[in-house]
Amino acid sequence: LAIVGYVFTDRLVPHIKSYTLRKGIAGKDLGKRGTSIADKDVPEALGIVAGAVFLVCLIFCLVGYAAWHPSKLLDMNSALLSICFMLFLGFTDDVLDWPWRYKLFLPSVASLPLLCCYNGSTSIVVPIPMRSWLWHDKSATLLGHLGFLYLLYMGLLAVFCTNAINIYAGINGLEAGQSYIIGCAVLVHNLLEIRFHNNLEENHLFSVMVMLSFVGVTLGLLKHNWFPASVFVGDTFCYFAGMTFAVVGILGHFSKTLLLFFIPQVINFVWSVPQLFKFVPCPRHRLPAINADTGLMEPSTFPCQPHEYRILKRHPNDTTVPNMTVINLCLQLVGPMSERSLCILLLALQTLSCGLGMLCRYYIANFFFDD
Amino acid sequence: LAIVGYVFTDRLVPHIKSYTLRKGIAGKDLGKRGTSIADKDVPEALGIVAGAVFLVCLIFCLVGYAAWHPSKLLDMNSALLSICFMLFLGFTDDVLDWPWRYKLFLPSVASLPLLCCYNGSTSIVVPIPMRSWLWHDKSATLLGHLGFLYLLYMGLLAVFCTNAINIYAGINGLEAGQSYIIGCAVLVHNLLEIRFHNNLEENHLFSVMVMLSFVGVTLGLLKHNWFPASVFVGDTFCYFAGMTFAVVGILGHFSKTLLLFFIPQVINFVWSVPQLFKFVPCPRHRLPAINADTGLMEPSTFPCQPHEYRILKRHPNDTTVPNMTVINLCLQLVGPMSERSLCILLLALQTLSCGLGMLCRYYIANFFFDD
Ligand SMILES: [Mg+2]
Ligand SMILES: [Mg+2]
Repeated sequence: LAIVGYVFTDRLVPHIKSYTLRKGIAGKDLGKRGTSIADKDVPEALGIVAGAVFLVCLIFCLVGYAAWHPSKLLDMNSALLSICFMLFLGFTDDVLDWPWRYKLFLPSVASLPLLCCYNGSTSIVVPIPMRSWLWHDKSATLLGHLGFLYLLYMGLLAVFCTNAINIYAGINGLEAGQSYIIGCAVLVHNLLEIRFHNNLEENHLFSVMVMLSFVGVTLGLLKHNWFPASVFVGDTFCYFAGMTFAVVGILGHFSKTLLLFFIPQVINFVWSVPQLFKFVPCPRHRLPAINADTGLMEPSTFPCQPHEYRILKRHPNDTTVPNMTVINLCLQLVGPMSERSLCILLLALQTLSCGLGMLCRYYIANFFFDD
Repeated sequence: LAIVGYVFTDRLVPHIKSYTLRKGIAGKDLGKRGTSIADKDVPEALGIVAGAVFLVCLIFCLVGYAAWHPSKLLDMNSALLSICFMLFLGFTDDVLDWPWRYKLFLPSVASLPLLCCYNGSTSIVVPIPMRSWLWHDKSATLLGHLGFLYLLYMGLLAVFCTNAINIYAGINGLEAGQSYIIGCAVLVHNLLEIRFHNNLEENHLFSVMVMLSFVGVTLGLLKHNWFPASVFVGDTFCYFAGMTFAVVGILGHFSKTLLLFFIPQVINFVWSVPQLFKFVPCPRHRLPAINADTGLMEPSTFPCQPHEYRILKRHPNDTTVPNMTVINLCLQLVGPMSERSLCILLLALQTLSCGLGMLCRYYIANFFFDD
């Protein structure tokens, strides 16, 4: 079984390569609709090409699955459905600019097929230190409730993943770069699990297959989106990438590990909460501003009264407050730098945190969970 | 089992109504991108609203299925995946104008998940008169080949359906109107089959559920698209409607009956073939032209030399040839008429042919097929 899976994924890699290449070419002649930023038109929403190629790849995988592992066909179908729906949503968002309520409602709906088809355990393994004081509880009822809560948690995970990448974005190469790094981390994790003959091997093989395609198309896209970007990836890419991670996390049964790889996004989200929920004014775009004199990026700001938001400002009497994103935070801490260096710094941060997440998963978790 | 299905579909109708209503409202404030036709901007591609609502409805159906009929979950998933992919393709086509090769390639890919999950019989019932001279053949090999050919036929059916509605279009209300009528015909057919306790009852129930949602959203859309149209449905609607029909036809196992309901589209397609394959010049749009003096529609034409295409012209020496669509053909036969009357005429034709198809299915087929 596993060998067939290996052969199949192996056989897939050149397949993806050629698709990515073709995508690279298509990337040039596609984006006719440009958004104008800094005097030049850069084609937007090219994530659509990556997304479409990715879907086509996966549909071919699906055919392979249908022939060899009919039992996993349902998983694959629901995964594809969720990803496809998000791709559609993302592209329509790029074109039509949905209001916020749709952006929260529709991803939840999109994750429903996934949850319906989720047939794994919904019980969570209780960490060893917490076990003693949980044991004397009415465990049965509690775990019954946890089953439902777990589904809810996975739904929220899907919504979080789709939006997390989108709000941690705005500079050339960052969206595709972080997705690429997380994708590689997931891939390494899966391969390690398969190597050590985990009992969920089949799920990890599934995840490897999805991730190989994903890493392939993302790399193709990143090449064009790297500074100076010839294309923008758009919300299209952010949404479908986020949903892809959620899908492999859920269907591969490693959603907690996945969150460890999302540490920078989580920090960014938590740090953004005051602005997202309008406790603090939030401009439409929060990406860092470029200083035309030096050519370096500086934190973008929003105006305020001198007496407001004292804790967020360096000098209490400033009339501007930096936007609350990790990108701006980095610029505040390290000082102005070029867009390219900023992107590399942030991606290094991402790599570091993925490594840290992996470390957590394999060494520290041993103290809390047996087996 | 059937009762649960009935209750479920019954329960769904008000659900859909409210969604359709909400769609109607959303239809107003959405289409910011207008195409300019006859001096006024009419929002285009509003099929996206219908499509999105339809998908959301079906995803809720899916949740119901997951709870009650887990065995059909795979069908439902693959159906949704195919429809969702076409919706995505249709919308991107509206926005980006794909070249023809994509329009043929991508629907084929979109139908693959469907074919993978098709677990019904692939043998065809040989008509009684043909049976005698087929019998002495090497039936086994032949039927083996037919199994593959049947899959191919269904793939082609999907590609045909998605494109057939799109090329039989262009005047207000026609796309949505014809889809509504075909949808109703399919619904009647399904209900008749369920009434007479056909052994494929479950498949027909599935189809009823999909079609109820579809008819609901189509009616909502038709209200806005009826002459004078306040919105256009766009390729988005044509593609997803076509794929929906293909999906129910294939998964409901009545693809031959479905084709009987598609008679006007088939005639239109056959009549269009010379232009589609460029044997005869084909302008970008072939919808009938309006005569500003009379306010009536007249057949649109393409220019030619006096000696060319004699059989297509009324007067052999004309320098224009009417475009080869059923719409223009009707105008040639009946004479100029208003857009509204033309649409009503064509829809009457559609109703007639659906009735005829039904007649064929239930009376004439008895002579050719036993059981
Ligand atoms: Mg964005
Ligand atoms: Mg069209």
